[in-house]
Formats: sequence, C-alpha cells, structure tokens
Amino acid sequence: MSRNDDAAGPKPLYFEDIFVGQRFSSGSYVMSAERIRAFAAEFDPQPFHLDEEAARASLFGGLVASGWHTAAVTMRLNVESGLPVTGGIIGAGGEIAWPKPTRPGDVVHVESEVTEITPSRSRPDRGTAMVVSRTLNQHGETVQTFKARLVIFRRLRSERGGAGC
Amino acid sequence: MSRNDDAAGPKPLYFEDIFVGQRFSSGSYVMSAERIRAFAAEFDPQPFHLDEEAARASLFGGLVASGWHTAAVTMRLNVESGLPVTGGIIGAGGEIAWPKPTRPGDVVHVESEVTEITPSRSRPDRGTAMVVSRTLNQHGETVQTFKARLVIFRRLRSERGGAGC
Repeated sequence: MSRNDDAAGPKPLYFEDIFVGQRFSSGSYVMSAERIRAFAAEFDPQPFHLDEEAARASLFGGLVASGWHTAAVTMRLNVESGLPVTGGIIGAGGEIAWPKPTRPGDVVHVESEVTEITPSRSRPDRGTAMVVSRTLNQHGETVQTFKARLVIFRRLRSERGGAGC
Repeated sequence: MSRNDDAAGPKPLYFEDIFVGQRFSSGSYVMSAERIRAFAAEFDPQPFHLDEEAARASLFGGLVASGWHTAAVTMRLNVESGLPVTGGIIGAGGEIAWPKPTRPGDVVHVESEVTEITPSRSRPDRGTAMVVSRTLNQHGETVQTFKARLVIFRRLRSERGGAGC
C-alpha cells in the first residue's frame, strides 16, 4: 500500500533529518461507502453522510464522507507511510480545511511538506516542524489540507536514553 | 444523554435565530478505553493510543485518545445535541487545538459559542456563523477547541422551497 521505495517502510526521522522543503508521500486508501456510513453512524449522523437518497437532495448532491472521517484516514496514511517521524506523530492542533468532499470509491493519498523547523528553546532534546499535509483524491483534487506543528525529537535523545519528557 | 431541557431536542435554528454571544451545551459522552483503542487501530495506530504499557513510557504517561477521536466525538455531540442548526452542521474547515489529551473514562461534553455572523453577499438564502466549540472533560478542563465557520440557511429558504443550493 505504500508508495515508498523501501517496502519495510522508511527509517524514522529525527529532528536533525528534517529540513524546510522536505516532502513525503503516503500510500493510498479507498473510501468505501460502507465505511463512510459506519463512521457517520458513530460520529457524524447527518443524512448526507448516511443515506444516498437523502444525500442527493442535499447541498452535496450525493453521499459524502464526514470531514472527520477524511481527517482520520489522513492520519492513518501519515502514521503508516506518510510521515516517518521518530517517536510518532504528535501535534497539539492545527488548521484544517476541506475544499472538496470525499465520496464513495475515492482513492486518497497524502502529500506533506515541511514548511518551517524550530529548535525548542527550553528542551534540548526536541524541536518542532510545521508540516502541511494535503489529502488528494484520484483526480488530483485536494479534499483536505491540514497544517500542524509537530513535536520531533533529536537523535541525541535516544542515544543518551534521555528520560526527560 | 442531552442536557437540553426539551428531551425531544431543540428545534433547528435558522440564520435569523442566530446571534453573537449565543451559547449551546451538548450532552455528554464517555470515552472508553475499548473505543479509544478501536479508533486508534483503524485510524491512528500509534503505541500511546493502543497499548497501556507502551503509553506509560511515552510523552503522555498513559493511554490517550487520538485527537481525531476527540474531534469525532465532539462532532457527534454537536450533531446530537450541541448545535441545533437547520439542515445540519456544514463547515469547510477551521482551527483545531488539543490543549490536553482525552483519557479512558473521561466524560466529555461540548460548549459552543457564536462569535460572528455574516450574511452571504451572493446567496440570499444563507449566511455563515463563526462558532467556537470547546470540548471539556469531567474536571472542566478543555481537551479540544475547534473554531469553524458554518453555513446556516435562512428561514425563507424552506418556506419558499428554495431549490437553489
């Protein structure tokens, strides 16, 4: 499912490995009508996410995934193959936008770019990176953008076994 | 589950009913360890969302929900009881922040406030409202804020049967 050359997945990156302009591309994921409806039933029970007929009469003209479903799938793609960051993808929030809805059968993947890196002033074991993740469908249309500041640990932390988080 | 006085739920509001400073409060939702792990297994498979022992050794010091799980639960609470907006809760994005993680057993609810209303210049059947939704745990701590611009239809649309969306 991954587009990365290394089938075992890329090595996790440390703060020292990250640079502005660096790009990542995830594997892909098929949005099925069944999962769109199941996610909506649990988390976003609105007619345009649940029922094809009701959705046709709505603003969207057909069944669409909850934006939060698109966000969750984007996270999965980034965790699995999109953002190989050491210690995991940890952020405290960001700006999200859904310029177009995700529809049943859409095949999405995520393209991310580092736009800023900032060493921590108070904690020498880490820094942050601003990362913009664009989720694209099979037509190359952007269905989501998410701009977030992520915590990224330095290599010395693991070498020295740093306990200080 | 709802905190609203009317057990059948409040009547859906139109743009004409919305004003700056208006507040809404949702029912509540219990974050179970089981659902935290299940959501993470599907959408955010990182050790601190999946495994109590691994989570204890992480930045979080214990199992925490994916931020996207908190976001999805917030949406459910707003759809079910938090934001009684006619035609559904429709937004194109916003700013999200997770100042604290959500943990197993947390009981969360959502408090929302309208901070801005804007009539549409081009579409007389609608306007937008900026709504800040704060998700709080049982200790009154904010675990998420989401600030979003929502589309809200005017009453005349349904009275005149407006087909123009």
